[in-house]
Amino acid sequence: MLGSTHGTLTTHSRPARVVACGEQPPHAVHGLSEPRGGIGDRDVSGRPLHAPVPDLDRFFRPESVAVIGASDSEGRPNTGITRQLITWAERVGARLHPVNPGRERVFGLPCHTAVADLPEPVDLAVLLVGDPVPVIEQLAETKAKFAVAFASGFAETGEEGATAQARLADAVERSGLRLLGPNTNLNAFETFRDDLNGPAIALITQSGHQGRPLFALQELGIRLSHWAPTGNEADLETADFLSYFASRPEVGAIAAYVEGLKDGRSFLLAADRAARHKVPVVAVKVGRTETGARTARSHTGKLTGADEVVDAAMRQFGVIRVNGLDELQDTAALLARAGQPTAEGVAVYSISGGTGAHFADLATAAGLRLPTLTQAKQSELHQWIPDYLNVANPIDNGGHPVGDWRGRKIIDAILADPSVGVLVCPITGPFPPMSDKLAQDLVDAAEQTDKLVCVVWGSPLGTEDAYRTTLLGSSRVATFRTFANCITAVRAYLDHHRFAAGYRSPFDDAPRVLSPSARKAQGLMRPGQELSEHAAKQLLRAYGIRVPREQLVTSAAAAVRAASLVGYPVVMKASGPQLAHKTELGLVKVGLTSASQVRDTYRELIDIARYEDVPLDGVLVCQMIERGVEMVVGVTHDSLFGPTMTVGLGGVLVEVLRDVAVGVPPFGEDQARAMLGELRGRALLEGVRGAPPADTDALIEVVLRVQRMALELGSDLAELDINPLVILPRGQGAVALDALAVCH
Amino acid sequence: MLGSTHGTLTTHSRPARVVACGEQPPHAVHGLSEPRGGIGDRDVSGRPLHAPVPDLDRFFRPESVAVIGASDSEGRPNTGITRQLITWAERVGARLHPVNPGRERVFGLPCHTAVADLPEPVDLAVLLVGDPVPVIEQLAETKAKFAVAFASGFAETGEEGATAQARLADAVERSGLRLLGPNTNLNAFETFRDDLNGPAIALITQSGHQGRPLFALQELGIRLSHWAPTGNEADLETADFLSYFASRPEVGAIAAYVEGLKDGRSFLLAADRAARHKVPVVAVKVGRTETGARTARSHTGKLTGADEVVDAAMRQFGVIRVNGLDELQDTAALLARAGQPTAEGVAVYSISGGTGAHFADLATAAGLRLPTLTQAKQSELHQWIPDYLNVANPIDNGGHPVGDWRGRKIIDAILADPSVGVLVCPITGPFPPMSDKLAQDLVDAAEQTDKLVCVVWGSPLGTEDAYRTTLLGSSRVATFRTFANCITAVRAYLDHHRFAAGYRSPFDDAPRVLSPSARKAQGLMRPGQELSEHAAKQLLRAYGIRVPREQLVTSAAAAVRAASLVGYPVVMKASGPQLAHKTELGLVKVGLTSASQVRDTYRELIDIARYEDVPLDGVLVCQMIERGVEMVVGVTHDSLFGPTMTVGLGGVLVEVLRDVAVGVPPFGEDQARAMLGELRGRALLEGVRGAPPADTDALIEVVLRVQRMALELGSDLAELDINPLVILPRGQGAVALDALAVCH
Repeated sequence: MLGSTHGTLTTHSRPARVVACGEQPPHAVHGLSEPRGGIGDRDVSGRPLHAPVPDLDRFFRPESVAVIGASDSEGRPNTGITRQLITWAERVGARLHPVNPGRERVFGLPCHTAVADLPEPVDLAVLLVGDPVPVIEQLAETKAKFAVAFASGFAETGEEGATAQARLADAVERSGLRLLGPNTNLNAFETFRDDLNGPAIALITQSGHQGRPLFALQELGIRLSHWAPTGNEADLETADFLSYFASRPEVGAIAAYVEGLKDGRSFLLAADRAARHKVPVVAVKVGRTETGARTARSHTGKLTGADEVVDAAMRQFGVIRVNGLDELQDTAALLARAGQPTAEGVAVYSISGGTGAHFADLATAAGLRLPTLTQAKQSELHQWIPDYLNVANPIDNGGHPVGDWRGRKIIDAILADPSVGVLVCPITGPFPPMSDKLAQDLVDAAEQTDKLVCVVWGSPLGTEDAYRTTLLGSSRVATFRTFANCITAVRAYLDHHRFAAGYRSPFDDAPRVLSPSARKAQGLMRPGQELSEHAAKQLLRAYGIRVPREQLVTSAAAAVRAASLVGYPVVMKASGPQLAHKTELGLVKVGLTSASQVRDTYRELIDIARYEDVPLDGVLVCQMIERGVEMVVGVTHDSLFGPTMTVGLGGVLVEVLRDVAVGVPPFGEDQARAMLGELRGRALLEGVRGAPPADTDALIEVVLRVQRMALELGSDLAELDINPLVILPRGQGAVALDALAVCH
Repeated sequence: MLGSTHGTLTTHSRPARVVACGEQPPHAVHGLSEPRGGIGDRDVSGRPLHAPVPDLDRFFRPESVAVIGASDSEGRPNTGITRQLITWAERVGARLHPVNPGRERVFGLPCHTAVADLPEPVDLAVLLVGDPVPVIEQLAETKAKFAVAFASGFAETGEEGATAQARLADAVERSGLRLLGPNTNLNAFETFRDDLNGPAIALITQSGHQGRPLFALQELGIRLSHWAPTGNEADLETADFLSYFASRPEVGAIAAYVEGLKDGRSFLLAADRAARHKVPVVAVKVGRTETGARTARSHTGKLTGADEVVDAAMRQFGVIRVNGLDELQDTAALLARAGQPTAEGVAVYSISGGTGAHFADLATAAGLRLPTLTQAKQSELHQWIPDYLNVANPIDNGGHPVGDWRGRKIIDAILADPSVGVLVCPITGPFPPMSDKLAQDLVDAAEQTDKLVCVVWGSPLGTEDAYRTTLLGSSRVATFRTFANCITAVRAYLDHHRFAAGYRSPFDDAPRVLSPSARKAQGLMRPGQELSEHAAKQLLRAYGIRVPREQLVTSAAAAVRAASLVGYPVVMKASGPQLAHKTELGLVKVGLTSASQVRDTYRELIDIARYEDVPLDGVLVCQMIERGVEMVVGVTHDSLFGPTMTVGLGGVLVEVLRDVAVGVPPFGEDQARAMLGELRGRALLEGVRGAPPADTDALIEVVLRVQRMALELGSDLAELDINPLVILPRGQGAVALDALAVCH
């Protein structure tokens, strides 16, 4: 019953399928098997530009439900499930039809022999049978809308199970039904508390067990509206629920626990949809570590994307990634309920200066901003707080003022400050004479303000009334148990609203038709081969990326002629298809200043190549480029997200520190700039040791042009590396000194 | 009553004082005002080599207590305190003597008019008066042992308070008493639960409020033995309690909440004492961020040391630094109670594969090792767990086996595995049919093993019996509420035992007498001046650190002679006392290969210096050193810890990424190696891009020699920078190409 792990088959392992409910025609996700350059709702890589939004109203609120394999024999697992479904159907007013060939009645309800005998086309069929495939086929005949398959033993168990799951997916595809599962459970049909108001959390978990503590948030007074336990995702996947929840009016935040993503593009589109609707998405995504990822793969038969790529994709589309289920709970609960911030400043108020300093320290380290209150505000606070206590922020009241009428005055005065958007009151230990009154004052003050009021209640057990009744009884105060979770949630809150306010969907600007550059580039591709440096640079030139003036020559005399055309001093490099490590082999010579040096060098390079048994297509005579900041720009293919870009600082920084940032297309200029901001060595671009600032605009332009190339060439371009890309001083551009391209 | 922040005066702001109780003679902490080179219990810098250990038995368990300012008038704060002390004294069997000139009896006890009238020399006097100074003087006459001062308004309030505190400290120093406070409270005399057994946590907090949740750990069944609320630390400080607790037999771990350290050396010595006794110390130290530190300073009048130095000091002496009070609780509780690990492997066992994979992911990211179980062990587990579930580790039982006799078998089989030292069972949500039995099995199994058994109980409220009664009722199972805190604590547990097993006190090897190098070096020092590069290099040579062959010349002809002695090619550098940025000014010329180049260069350097108005003491003609890995090695003075060392990768790495490691003397070779291991760019030393591995032994040797120099020259050497120190290939040594030295 407790979900074991889940086996999503990626779109890699089976052909693209017709999306049911008719929102979108079939599409190839990574390949170029479909003609590119079409217009409308696909980009130039042939991938969709809008999330399909399945209409799941009848899934979550069906009017009629069939239970296939219903039972009321004591001791059978299906009996408990049947009982739970009957109770739930009664509660939501759905008609329930048991199906079981061996019974006339189940729990008093008339039981049908077969699916074909169902008295109506049901909204939802719950499949409690070992092999759901034949039932799916029968249900298709009856025009049923949704099915849920509980059976396990599919992709989560290995290769054989994966084959069975692919068969099930095919059956679903042909049927016109939408399926939840297999390897799922009843969580979607739990009894949610209906006495809680305000914006709710909608929950998506691949494993039911992982969702349990989030469901229990209702015990803390936090409303839940939906729970989608997606299981193996043979059909409906995390992205489908994300898209659906994003436009439900009752949903204030979406919380997701993801073991593996089924398809990168559908996830991006769903996250984009949530971002457009300004609905925060908070997610745990397993796979932080290689080992974790390996575990996830080996345990689930599911492809876990390289974690940095997942991280980048989430960041670009504003998905807040957290590590633990406790953070998921606390962050989603805050984001669901808190309104728009009026300011980004955080005020920390405490009955102990030590507590305030400690919280301020951790909050600042996490990137929160604690504005210093104005002298006027401090004077106002000193009406009620002894003069020797610091009230600049953090605000230390010394304890006593909370015990009387001053307590509320202080809180209101802090909340009235225009620089303050969030008030945090850390209470490390209950001290009833003070903390009870303080809790009540905070709850009362929160009722009168639109600003966010947070409390950290630090006792180990949390049995106190002030916590259980006063604080948890308020939907206006966000209550936490640890400093860390409060800081994580407040940071996510401010980040989310900043992101949502400035969000512009990159899908709106994604290229839909092939550029003239693409046609030139396609002519340069050599399927299955690695291009020579010269050919790779031509590819770059096709996209308007500057390369040094250079000529490919095949004789010493031609080299001398080329050098005078290119202009001295020149660089000479052996050129050939398998020359990834030219420098180590001595096949690059720089600073050649005369015809005789060029002639000698030509011969030397040919000799070395012969000696090293390296096939050449000639020697490149290149313009020598002045010094600048060396960067790398690359394209790789991620198994989930397709073409993926990397930008990093060159030289030792990329080799030793792997100081790179990842971008998942499509992204716009702002995201490209954000990528540079993620580099630890970004100060190099600003100019160090007296160097002038580098032309970052030119670098951004190269990144965007390479992105266009990556989208237009799609999987034809298996790999591209510009290393180094030299960024000249501001206003002088960027030059690709070397490039490596691998065709698929 | 709730402690506001505390104002420790550092040894900077007042003269060194006589340590009471006679353990140690007075000492100068940073300066060289005392003769150096003495032997015995001081190192060559004049600082002590052993922690003073105050005998605090009579402080924590006094036989007689005086309450100065005792009251029983309703509504006075002193009345509550008096009542609490009377109750406590009765409980521990101490005689209590109220002192108050205005009363004959207080709560029925005979009250004394003045301190002089006390019927016996008391072990402890509790001072509930506004100005403790005169009382301290009177108590000194009566031969009282300890005093606690509650009064606030001292260093925590600003300059005036700091003066008052210095006066108090002086009074204490003269008195022969030891004082706790001022600005402290009754926490040391709380009523601890005496029904809890096993090793206890001893608690040190500067603020009483911050200790409250740790005291409340007793509600979770975790034993506490002591609580020292150190307040402003006018006399007794964190280090004193650390030293005392380290040898108390009932103490299993020390938990400390530190706002600011009073003195770096005394903290190191106390931590060293704990390390020698293998007693784990877990600490929150406020001041992670500049802002945090600034807050701490401005709020408390206390000097917060540069955080990286504090971090390094704690790491070197095995103090486990955590961020939040919740981590402090969870980590200290685990370390207090868990025995020696038999292996470092962690087994993760769960009733949901998803939970196991998630925990494994986060645990691995945090550096825990999850060994893959042997095929034999996996087969054993598959007797009880279905074959399709993964039991390699994490171990997924799929749920059902925990419900019957198999549950305990599985746990025992995992615990019997020799690669497993820790078993963690994350239970993300209670599911009573399974989790209740699982909790009981874990508790039962933990009774039968010496290995560490951890449970994470993930429900938001934690009201369940399995948690409250079964798990918290066991002193053998460590129960956590979040994955993160469990991982932090387990990591600390394994780290501590590894550290303690290999610990060798650096104080045992600290130099006690001046080396011959020191005498040479002292002759080179120029008080108040920055040395020229040449002089700074002579300082290095005095300590046997290799510098290039070089000569300082003052004429072109001498330069040519020098070049032929040094050997071509040479480097020429302008030399003078204020030449920190020679390269930028064009005052360094490399690769000079002939007499005429040397002659021309000499003139050029003189011209530039004249043009730039830079005073020179000549021109250095230096041997040119082949390429190697460029490092920096430096000495600075930390206000708390005195001379502090820095090692980093040179060039762009140190400038852009500040990739440096800090070491607080004294440290040995192992710690020096550990510093290199902290560098993000450490791979450069191993050889990248085909470069040979660098001579790290030579680098370590330089670090240790510079440490010796820093200790011997003490504050005479305000600053030293070797930049670059070129590390040649293995076996070839290290050469200091440039050096900067500033004398105090």
